Amino acid sequence: MKTEFEFLAKLKNQYNLTKIGDDCAVLPKNSKTDTVITTDLLVEDIDFRLSWTKPEFLGHKSLAVSLSDIAAMGAKPVWSMLSIGVPPKIWKTDFVEKFYEGYMRLAKKSDVELVGGDVSKTPDKVVVDSIVAGEVKKGKAILRSGAKVGDLIYVTGFLGGASLGLELLENGKNFQNSKYKNLLLRQLSPDPQTEIGQILGSKNLATSMIDLSDGISSDLKHICSASRVGAKIFTKNLPVEPEIFNFESKLRDKISYTLDGGEDFELLFTVAPKKNFQLQKALKNHHFSQLGVITSNREIIELITASETSVLPSKGFQHFE
Amino acid sequence: MKTEFEFLAKLKNQYNLTKIGDDCAVLPKNSKTDTVITTDLLVEDIDFRLSWTKPEFLGHKSLAVSLSDIAAMGAKPVWSMLSIGVPPKIWKTDFVEKFYEGYMRLAKKSDVELVGGDVSKTPDKVVVDSIVAGEVKKGKAILRSGAKVGDLIYVTGFLGGASLGLELLENGKNFQNSKYKNLLLRQLSPDPQTEIGQILGSKNLATSMIDLSDGISSDLKHICSASRVGAKIFTKNLPVEPEIFNFESKLRDKISYTLDGGEDFELLFTVAPKKNFQLQKALKNHHFSQLGVITSNREIIELITASETSVLPSKGFQHFE
Repeated sequence: MKTEFEFLAKLKNQYNLTKIGDDCAVLPKNSKTDTVITTDLLVEDIDFRLSWTKPEFLGHKSLAVSLSDIAAMGAKPVWSMLSIGVPPKIWKTDFVEKFYEGYMRLAKKSDVELVGGDVSKTPDKVVVDSIVAGEVKKGKAILRSGAKVGDLIYVTGFLGGASLGLELLENGKNFQNSKYKNLLLRQLSPDPQTEIGQILGSKNLATSMIDLSDGISSDLKHICSASRVGAKIFTKNLPVEPEIFNFESKLRDKISYTLDGGEDFELLFTVAPKKNFQLQKALKNHHFSQLGVITSNREIIELITASETSVLPSKGFQHFE
Repeated sequence: MKTEFEFLAKLKNQYNLTKIGDDCAVLPKNSKTDTVITTDLLVEDIDFRLSWTKPEFLGHKSLAVSLSDIAAMGAKPVWSMLSIGVPPKIWKTDFVEKFYEGYMRLAKKSDVELVGGDVSKTPDKVVVDSIVAGEVKKGKAILRSGAKVGDLIYVTGFLGGASLGLELLENGKNFQNSKYKNLLLRQLSPDPQTEIGQILGSKNLATSMIDLSDGISSDLKHICSASRVGAKIFTKNLPVEPEIFNFESKLRDKISYTLDGGEDFELLFTVAPKKNFQLQKALKNHHFSQLGVITSNREIIELITASETSVLPSKGFQHFE
């Protein structure tokens, strides 16, 4: 079966859709500024389960996933739209009010104005489409395609938490009485890296960037593919979510959470070595890790452990495969 | 139960969302131009049935409904995004390819560039969110709120066809072997009034405008409410879709199709009497009808027939009531 990536690549080629293929589309606004814009569809029982989450969390997450795409362009979020479809049994409750509470709280914090949207009935599932636009200096949006051989590869924050959080929910853990609330929140109510995205964009520090929605093994591949380069990453440098260690004995390999786990919504970016000092200074109040280096080994990601070097297969999330 | 209009009014007030409430949000682009933007959610078995339509028609309609909102602002459409969710059983077929064929054909005709979107899996229904942006001279977007007492009320094209088309489909008529293909196409593959919208916008001819998605009885009410005026319309002036007369004996009152029938996607607008001559000239190649006049009778729509004057209740489409 065609994957969604294959389908989109074919569509892009067939209709010459040159603006498709990054975290956001980049559109000219005026002589000084470009607009970047993204849309994310979230579907009940595919992207979330109502029994696992709270409407406030879902409202927050709906905005957060799109803010993360804006951050990945190095842009400042400005305005948003939201389409929501709900079945009558949900409409009758206070679900939509609580949903917008969570959405608007994050919108206010992120200085984003909700300017439009649509409300519709559905037969039985909740569906949300989130649209966010941001602004960036003309020509300065950080694309996936700018990584150069020798660039250093960085990632913000800690990885694998959202994926482990999902596994806990799948195994019946409940948010209300869980002692792992932080892990569950990584999955249910992720924080977009809006501030770091803007620092990297405004100071022109990154040569390429993507947000980690599908997992490093997929998302670094997207950078390599768009930039026509390869990458080498060191497992010892992977910033494993500290709480994962509490579960170590019961888990599949913790490294697989960090490499293939989706929805961490951290930023993965590359930096020219000559800007490394400037980067360290600019992000001195944030947690970030150097994973490795960009190579000329086109579209090959080498994974280097203490004992061996192997080629990393893409195991990140795909809807259709 | 709260209607979606009540919910949105409350939300707008609670969070001070000043840009919500017209066919599109109006956003500043540069010193000469404003951007207008809209989003429309279409859900299987609520807004369409796969057994009634073809994927090409659905692709066309998904774009058309949003183009109609752009036209209603007097703007020129420029770019679009599309989020689509489909269940695996549909993804396996050529549904999405055919869907985009219909979508892209109308996009090309309308000079709209598809710049982004999202593709997702759903449990069992198709869902589409259509986003279109357009441009209009700064400060010249035609809002719902500009109608003045004494303005003439106009509508483009013919009314009631989409609604009768829907009724035929509900009664088991099939597009392939129907002799009423034109009526069914009014429902399945509507044409947005992109050209007329731009004429009215660029020549500054209309004081207010809305597209007919829910029916005159609802949509004229929106204009009256936003403009704090009333309206008087003459039933003899209603441009009844000619094919409706073929069904007359079997039908509910044909006037109700034109007043309460949704999805005609014609434009309803008001014009200052002093611009009437200019309007007639500007639209000389298009069909349009003068329905009546704006009154000071706030939010009251009077319906005038040969024998009586009555107050028109809103009977147009609402998702939740």
